[in-house]
Amino acid sequence: MLSKSKTTELRKLLQKKYREETGLFIVEGGKSVDELLRSSLTVKGIWATDTWLSAHPQLSVAAEAVTEVELARISALTTPQQVLAVACAPRYAVADFDTSAGAILLDGIRDPGNLGTIIRTADWFGFRQVVCSTDCVEFTNPKVIQATMGSFARVAVFYADLPTFLRGSTARVFGTFLQGRPIEEVTFRRDDLLVIGNEGRGITEPVARCVTDQVHIPSYGGTGDHAESLNASVAAAVAMYAIRRQML
Amino acid sequence: MLSKSKTTELRKLLQKKYREETGLFIVEGGKSVDELLRSSLTVKGIWATDTWLSAHPQLSVAAEAVTEVELARISALTTPQQVLAVACAPRYAVADFDTSAGAILLDGIRDPGNLGTIIRTADWFGFRQVVCSTDCVEFTNPKVIQATMGSFARVAVFYADLPTFLRGSTARVFGTFLQGRPIEEVTFRRDDLLVIGNEGRGITEPVARCVTDQVHIPSYGGTGDHAESLNASVAAAVAMYAIRRQML
Repeated sequence: MLSKSKTTELRKLLQKKYREETGLFIVEGGKSVDELLRSSLTVKGIWATDTWLSAHPQLSVAAEAVTEVELARISALTTPQQVLAVACAPRYAVADFDTSAGAILLDGIRDPGNLGTIIRTADWFGFRQVVCSTDCVEFTNPKVIQATMGSFARVAVFYADLPTFLRGSTARVFGTFLQGRPIEEVTFRRDDLLVIGNEGRGITEPVARCVTDQVHIPSYGGTGDHAESLNASVAAAVAMYAIRRQML
Repeated sequence: MLSKSKTTELRKLLQKKYREETGLFIVEGGKSVDELLRSSLTVKGIWATDTWLSAHPQLSVAAEAVTEVELARISALTTPQQVLAVACAPRYAVADFDTSAGAILLDGIRDPGNLGTIIRTADWFGFRQVVCSTDCVEFTNPKVIQATMGSFARVAVFYADLPTFLRGSTARVFGTFLQGRPIEEVTFRRDDLLVIGNEGRGITEPVARCVTDQVHIPSYGGTGDHAESLNASVAAAVAMYAIRRQML
């Protein structure tokens, strides 16, 4: 039985303000919570149905049984999924950025689904670092966490003022634009940085000035009428694939 | 001034049932409506703010001025965007499928954002045909239309029972799986078909039996722990890029 005060407390974590105040965030769904439990992140509590709890008899963290109705009250999902966990949000300091490993840089990604999908794709293609501009959606947003499908626990997501970050870097900085060299013609190195722009306006002027190499994803769509651009998470994915593929 | 009965009538089009009954669908936002007006689709009416209307003095379709408050009442968007149009939904019959042009086949794509993004990406990479299984989300769903960013007007979206459709086809059928040949090792032809599976369960058994060639998108993520899979629209995009790139 979930108390009224606990319900209120957990519901507050759906708001960015309270997540920032407490340093906590919410992870929902069987797959994501399993990944959370396997990670090094600190789990503060679990609220789950009896079904989920009986499938997880060896839990080392405090867990409370709740009904599906109670779960619906604290969930950010339209269809709550058996389990909700609260964990301490990882803090990645720019000082800990691994300059030898390269990274995907995001300039103003506002859509939670796009950010989550980009983190998931980065994880798939072995990019362990994502650097977000400070106006990107916060990665502890429940919709971001949901879209990462568990990859939130494996990719370091930094937040930084991108021009400042880039001026302190000696790496090559690639940026995806609607013009530039076709991405498959570039020879990438492990420590390269790749910037993906905002959904609507692309890469901002201050960041564009730090880009050393403009690249684009050819449309091959012929000379006819075709889509003006790609979705940001799609552009990021195609670029990551193109980079990894030529590193084979 | 938008009448109450017109508001009710337009709001009904937010429901699949009424879209199917009337054969109409809603297009919102400046870019999407501009693409609609340039297309061959029949536009039944436009409801727009004075700002939008004064920027479009040469309209050849009936347009009514509405306030932003009125627009919010008929809009499917959280932030309505100056203009909403109602148009006749195109009907693509399987008999009109161009077997020489190839296609992207979608087996149970449920998420409107994914379907819209796949249509947009197909348009970018010059795939003019998408074939949806009958349990895919309907492409006149406002969220699908929104995510296509205007590409809904340029890509033919068919609905068919995929096993039946595939048994009637002589083309090679590629399917994306978590195993199979790395997609960059395949030599594609213009008339090939490519199947993308559902977000959670992948390609269904009856469709899998029609697949002639299993392919996968290598993760290059090393042997360590990494994401189990890619988002469906990301997998579709990487596959389309890989196909077009080797056709250069």
